[in-house]
Amino acid sequence: MTSPEFLFDFGSPNAWLSHLVLPDIEARTGVKFSYQPVLLGGIFRATGNRSPAEAYANIRNKMAYEHLEMERFIRRHGVTRFRFNPYFPVNTLQLMRGAVAAQREDVFAPYVEAVFSAMWEHPRKMDDPEVFRAALTDAGLPVERLLQRAADQDVKDELLANTNQAVERGVFGIPSFFVGDELYFGKDRLRDVEEEILRRQNAGAGAAA
Amino acid sequence: MTSPEFLFDFGSPNAWLSHLVLPDIEARTGVKFSYQPVLLGGIFRATGNRSPAEAYANIRNKMAYEHLEMERFIRRHGVTRFRFNPYFPVNTLQLMRGAVAAQREDVFAPYVEAVFSAMWEHPRKMDDPEVFRAALTDAGLPVERLLQRAADQDVKDELLANTNQAVERGVFGIPSFFVGDELYFGKDRLRDVEEEILRRQNAGAGAAA
Repeated sequence: MTSPEFLFDFGSPNAWLSHLVLPDIEARTGVKFSYQPVLLGGIFRATGNRSPAEAYANIRNKMAYEHLEMERFIRRHGVTRFRFNPYFPVNTLQLMRGAVAAQREDVFAPYVEAVFSAMWEHPRKMDDPEVFRAALTDAGLPVERLLQRAADQDVKDELLANTNQAVERGVFGIPSFFVGDELYFGKDRLRDVEEEILRRQNAGAGAAA
Repeated sequence: MTSPEFLFDFGSPNAWLSHLVLPDIEARTGVKFSYQPVLLGGIFRATGNRSPAEAYANIRNKMAYEHLEMERFIRRHGVTRFRFNPYFPVNTLQLMRGAVAAQREDVFAPYVEAVFSAMWEHPRKMDDPEVFRAALTDAGLPVERLLQRAADQDVKDELLANTNQAVERGVFGIPSFFVGDELYFGKDRLRDVEEEILRRQNAGAGAAA
């Protein structure tokens, strides 16, 4: 089967929580997720959607429930590496362009780990260029090459194309997941994502037998 | 353990879908859900929340995804008894007052079944008093007694009290569930509801041993 996809933006705490749990799903199913960098701000502009913090600000009980479900997720999965970023919301445009650059420079996995961690494990003000640069340096990443690549027009265009394509496929927020063409929104759908992967594996095994 | 609670309003299609699935959870866990009639319109007024149809009307992709998840739920649980009500949204004030009246007249379970069915199985325009009356008659319910009771001030007050109490406990929409004081919102939390019931049963068995 084709790799299931994880559409992410570093600005989403629920994307980070998903990222922490995906290795367990990968271990149980034997598949690897394909990480797709997209710009959440661009998705919001294209769809008219807003962050939960904005959309639910004036709805009594709703944000408290969001936090309750976040706590439940953390407890269920034994997450220890999470601290809310005090600078939230962080503008992630440079961080996401950097992710596309890191794909081209073959340092995508360590870049994703370093930037996500600097957002939600040891949170920093990552839309400050100096802070961003320092985080990459601390992680041993090739800072100058990455920043230079991130400024290339074709890198900017690719992030935009990823984002627009996601919206064309039905996405309206982050984290989103695709198993084939089946869209799942939100960290609380990860059980459904895993079941759909297993269902397809079983169907494939049946067809091959 | 105390009964888990199902807070419902007949106007919610997701409450009907939950109602269809609760017997399976009851069979697996051996518990009975306690059905609590509340007025969704009152919850919306108290919290500033709105229906998904209203809140997501101008968000691209969002309602399509809601429908996709509804279809997935229907497929997963083998639901055959569901048709969207062409008169939606239906004002449910009289229907919900009737539910409180039915509790007092000891015909609550058949009333719930009849009114839910007339909303989402064989959908009718249930905020038309004649249609409402006919649906109760067809179900063999004591129409006159119920309508008379439903007009009592203390029945009206009880529905209002149920609704306000729900909001005080953190509710902002329907369907909502409580296992003890743990709130779960939405039909897609029913797996979590079932797990929490089983967790408490196991904890209780451990304590008793």
